Amino acid sequence: MFDRIALIGIGLIGSSLARVIRREGLAGEIVVSTRSAGTLARAQELALGDRYTTDAAEAVKDADLVIVSVPVGSSGAVAERIAPALKPGAIVTDVGSTKASVIAQMQPHMPPHVHFIPGHPLAGTEKSGPDAGFAELFENRWCILTPPEGAEPEAVERLAAFWRACGSNIDTMDPEHHDMVLAMVSHLPHIIAYNIVGTADDLQTVTKSEVIKYSASGFRDFTRLAASDPTMWRDVCLHNKDAILEMLSRFSEDLASLQRAIRWGDGDKLFELFTRTRAVRRSIIEAGQEVDAPDFGRFVAAHPEKN
Amino acid sequence: MFDRIALIGIGLIGSSLARVIRREGLAGEIVVSTRSAGTLARAQELALGDRYTTDAAEAVKDADLVIVSVPVGSSGAVAERIAPALKPGAIVTDVGSTKASVIAQMQPHMPPHVHFIPGHPLAGTEKSGPDAGFAELFENRWCILTPPEGAEPEAVERLAAFWRACGSNIDTMDPEHHDMVLAMVSHLPHIIAYNIVGTADDLQTVTKSEVIKYSASGFRDFTRLAASDPTMWRDVCLHNKDAILEMLSRFSEDLASLQRAIRWGDGDKLFELFTRTRAVRRSIIEAGQEVDAPDFGRFVAAHPEKN
Repeated sequence: MFDRIALIGIGLIGSSLARVIRREGLAGEIVVSTRSAGTLARAQELALGDRYTTDAAEAVKDADLVIVSVPVGSSGAVAERIAPALKPGAIVTDVGSTKASVIAQMQPHMPPHVHFIPGHPLAGTEKSGPDAGFAELFENRWCILTPPEGAEPEAVERLAAFWRACGSNIDTMDPEHHDMVLAMVSHLPHIIAYNIVGTADDLQTVTKSEVIKYSASGFRDFTRLAASDPTMWRDVCLHNKDAILEMLSRFSEDLASLQRAIRWGDGDKLFELFTRTRAVRRSIIEAGQEVDAPDFGRFVAAHPEKN
Repeated sequence: MFDRIALIGIGLIGSSLARVIRREGLAGEIVVSTRSAGTLARAQELALGDRYTTDAAEAVKDADLVIVSVPVGSSGAVAERIAPALKPGAIVTDVGSTKASVIAQMQPHMPPHVHFIPGHPLAGTEKSGPDAGFAELFENRWCILTPPEGAEPEAVERLAAFWRACGSNIDTMDPEHHDMVLAMVSHLPHIIAYNIVGTADDLQTVTKSEVIKYSASGFRDFTRLAASDPTMWRDVCLHNKDAILEMLSRFSEDLASLQRAIRWGDGDKLFELFTRTRAVRRSIIEAGQEVDAPDFGRFVAAHPEKN
């Protein structure tokens, strides 16, 4: 599909890409680049690529597809570094969780002779680093592309075909709408999860060991998102601020109203909300975006022999 | 272990108890009782008990152990109904998520010749009803007993031994502390989950179909708790009000501070919180209260053949 793919950044997403590119034979050659010599050595031990370098500019030379998979706050620096070395006609994309900010950081550095088409695969786990990736990560997940006005349709389609070959479904939208949607479905949930785990960690009336022992009663569901990569999520908060603040304010308004219903014993209002939310999960399961196994299938994960 | 066990209520918890009692041979006879004739018929189809009745008073006759597994708001009515029929020396317990309120509702009806020892197994899934139960539900989960002052130690130990035979670990504490701990580790997480799913459901800038399609990016983790039984959770909110309001107020205070850090671009503060919360999840996994499979093991649940 491509003669040479350069992966800039080899964490959870980059290393999953490396694995699926290899499995599906999507590139003649995979070049892996990351700033940290230790991480690069690990990527090499895992045989994730064909060539390895800590120099991003070196990595993109002669690459037909460049995929930048770094925390969104580093996008600008990477773009500046690789720009002079990009091959004419190359497709440059990224996997960042915010799009308007990434475009503002990268676009000014992009030479006119490359196709810059930002993207965001909605896939991940709470693990990070090159060991955490797996080839099936993108299966049946959505990948959102936000091609700038005037992007060449053939290049967009070539990138879309690449993601479909990785197992993803493709949507395109404008960057601002992407950032609003993701603020709701991804950024707000992570922030709320981080917050509740922080609240529990700070309590004095309930000890930390009690929080941990009794977490199976609900709390532990939040700890997965709150175990996500701190650098990535700091950058997301800093780079999608307006949309996140808008969603946070709606959430807090709704929570104040729910708190009032609890204080005044308004059982009907509670029951109405608690019934309505059930339907949302059913829809997610029907859309194939969640497993229907009780408790997320934790029992199956812990006892595969009993399945 | 007991000649006759009466299960009052045969939902997720009651039906899991029926299954583990049978598997472990903990009772000579299991009597199943629930108000709804339809649910009782289903329990009978599933062969969960040896005898079936919609009359709770009839069910407890000659039972050595009576386990009340109903929404906490119904505890008082059940206690009043069964009290005259209880066998002298019987142990009466419950599985309710709030303890002070259940004790206030049930204790006044309990005759002096029975052992009333409230309990709460910290186990469950988002599913409800007699079909949702499974014998392994209590395995390696904590069961908290809140024996009243003056409870006979032998009776408490007999009940503890029963729960251990179901696979649980036992803790005892006073009801007020239980309610405070559970407000944090269980009630607050459920309320927050219900709230965020409600916020998403109400949005207009982001469509419902977008929320559902893109939910794998974080949101869907919240939908599991928000799919829990509405009647049960309405009752929990109404019956553990003070502790829940206290935890909600701490959560909101912390969220306001986090929101401020986002608004003012305080990356260090965000990074510090996001790092600290990671450690909480590690502790929960080390304590054996969570699986370490990425993404809760959803991948394993969806593809058991690839494990």
